Amino acid sequence: MKITAAEIFQSVEDIRAKSPLVHNITNYVVMNNTANALLAVGASPVMIHAEEEVEDMAAIASALVINIGTMSAPWVRAMFKAFGRAVSAGVPVVIDPVGAGATPYRTQTVRELVGAGRPTIIRGNASEILALAGDRRTTRGVDSTAASDEALSAAQYLSEKHQCAVSISGAVDYTVEGRRVVKTANGHPMMTRVTGLGCTATALCGAFAAVDKDGLAAAAKAMAVMGIAGEMAAEKAAGPGSLQMHFLDALYGLSREDVAGRLKIEVA
Amino acid sequence: MKITAAEIFQSVEDIRAKSPLVHNITNYVVMNNTANALLAVGASPVMIHAEEEVEDMAAIASALVINIGTMSAPWVRAMFKAFGRAVSAGVPVVIDPVGAGATPYRTQTVRELVGAGRPTIIRGNASEILALAGDRRTTRGVDSTAASDEALSAAQYLSEKHQCAVSISGAVDYTVEGRRVVKTANGHPMMTRVTGLGCTATALCGAFAAVDKDGLAAAAKAMAVMGIAGEMAAEKAAGPGSLQMHFLDALYGLSREDVAGRLKIEVA
Amino acid sequence: MKITAAEIFQSVEDIRAKSPLVHNITNYVVMNNTANALLAVGASPVMIHAEEEVEDMAAIASALVINIGTMSAPWVRAMFKAFGRAVSAGVPVVIDPVGAGATPYRTQTVRELVGAGRPTIIRGNASEILALAGDRRTTRGVDSTAASDEALSAAQYLSEKHQCAVSISGAVDYTVEGRRVVKTANGHPMMTRVTGLGCTATALCGAFAAVDKDGLAAAAKAMAVMGIAGEMAAEKAAGPGSLQMHFLDALYGLSREDVAGRLKIEVA
Repeated sequence: MKITAAEIFQSVEDIRAKSPLVHNITNYVVMNNTANALLAVGASPVMIHAEEEVEDMAAIASALVINIGTMSAPWVRAMFKAFGRAVSAGVPVVIDPVGAGATPYRTQTVRELVGAGRPTIIRGNASEILALAGDRRTTRGVDSTAASDEALSAAQYLSEKHQCAVSISGAVDYTVEGRRVVKTANGHPMMTRVTGLGCTATALCGAFAAVDKDGLAAAAKAMAVMGIAGEMAAEKAAGPGSLQMHFLDALYGLSREDVAGRLKIEVA
Repeated sequence: MKITAAEIFQSVEDIRAKSPLVHNITNYVVMNNTANALLAVGASPVMIHAEEEVEDMAAIASALVINIGTMSAPWVRAMFKAFGRAVSAGVPVVIDPVGAGATPYRTQTVRELVGAGRPTIIRGNASEILALAGDRRTTRGVDSTAASDEALSAAQYLSEKHQCAVSISGAVDYTVEGRRVVKTANGHPMMTRVTGLGCTATALCGAFAAVDKDGLAAAAKAMAVMGIAGEMAAEKAAGPGSLQMHFLDALYGLSREDVAGRLKIEVA
Repeated sequence: MKITAAEIFQSVEDIRAKSPLVHNITNYVVMNNTANALLAVGASPVMIHAEEEVEDMAAIASALVINIGTMSAPWVRAMFKAFGRAVSAGVPVVIDPVGAGATPYRTQTVRELVGAGRPTIIRGNASEILALAGDRRTTRGVDSTAASDEALSAAQYLSEKHQCAVSISGAVDYTVEGRRVVKTANGHPMMTRVTGLGCTATALCGAFAAVDKDGLAAAAKAMAVMGIAGEMAAEKAAGPGSLQMHFLDALYGLSREDVAGRLKIEVA
């Protein structure tokens, strides 16, 4: 297996051409910037969470993204409903276990959610992936307290258990499915000072999953594009405020050369 | 009837001088940037949705803006309450049927809402206006799949039925009331890659309706100012991230000359 | 008592070194930019509001920030729960009475909330502080209609009653605790045209309270840093859009010299 710059850029072009409808049930903090990131990359985001309509929307979407960030009981019910319907309609589903491990309610809920259907991709930081897999180290909030490679076996365990791709983001991202492992190493440390860039990566996984049936490849491509746009933005940024702005501009203008010249990927 | 650049800028100056209180019951995705757009144009935004207080707030506001984007049952109840109270208090009401046509729940709810009182302005994209008027073409999400002129007769039908102004935004915007039609043609295609600029247009309709009792004129002025600030921003922008930033700066600094030099309006 | 530039910058360095976990139960409008401000200053924000988990999160946080902006009944229940648990766990609590005085529901609820435990800091604009203290002048929305010095005796009354620091933001900020009064006068008028910068000040109070046990000093330091970053941003900004961006960059890059060279503080 190999994921080339050309293949990654082909997916970007597919997203731009098809403008896939990405249905997000996500947290309040990041709704605006994940919608903007999806628009910038070429997708068509929709944010809908009412129990009365999530199934109808999930069924006609090209991908469903579920992010538990600011969850509460009514939202959780909607997540289960949308997930079930998406799976039965053949729509790829990406789940972000934001803050798993931070509270028992959160950890328990997302474990049940992930087990309730068959996700295509699970994406989180190391702490979240560890918590989801049952590791007892506690998550401190929503920022990771572990390095991404520490969660590698947890990710492999989750991948086997749920038959899906699992991506751990960090300075180096690991995306695994079964025995396959893809390392991507683009990005910039300042990205951790912008809220919701992890959630943005999850949303991009949805856009790539809409145009690439291989969950592992879709997730790895999203992580690569995320990192490349992030490092392009960081080069122009005077701080996290301008990084967020340049990031959206970079995603929007991303060229074949940007991907080819910057890509750091390793497939094991 | 005629709407001149001088009249449009007079309304901008009225907003700046009076700082009208615009009460928004709107969606999570756009709350931050619509509040910022209202502040930038000179208005005073307030976002309040609890059933316990929406009536008190709507009654003392200078305009009420209802946007169904991320609606759920409790929010819908608050929308009906606020709408009723605003109408009885003589406060102009602007309704944005975000995503009408995308799900039955959404379409049904907004039809009932619009019929429950007398709005001053309805503003949506072509797909939404068509869906609200009963056209069976489906909306795909929240982005329009039809051109604005395709929805012209639907807008005229809604205008007659609800005795209000109806504005269809697009590359060319059509604002109608009864037989009067105003075309505005400012703006830039990159604006469709920034989330919530349609919702921002709706919020600006609220600010203009607060200082102009003619709903058609208020809506057309808002659409013109929206488009002018958008094209000024697009000229400086490297992508949708910087467009959003420059848009707020342009609204804030908008001059008589900007309006006079750029305005593309046609009254039929 | 004296608060020097060196002490203020020491607190900034403490925040950067310890990255305190700041738990926010705040309003939808500002979640994204307050999270970004907390990240920019060096803290680790978490936004969690479900009744099922707010107590678990508040207990392990370094500070709890409660902001009633877009409150509704379930959120209010969570605010009471989190507040109680934070107080019993010794976690400092900052309360922002957004829009107090605008509606009876809002005024009544926040009065009960503030009285239900012992906050460390209350921060609001003059209208809100007056309303919280029982002054019958009405708040018009969320923007103040009074100057900050008009609310000074109201702040002193609240400080005595609740045994906490009270900060009134405005062109000049007054922070009081008992008989102590600190005036800070940094900032720029354009900051009032960016939504949620008051809420950002409140969030920063949380970060400073996490590293400084003296509520008065923590609040005054937060107000000073807020104002300094704001005026640095305003000098580069072409309007409120770019001000928001430069503000985050300024907070992130804030140096000892920036604080020393710009600080306008007076302790009475």
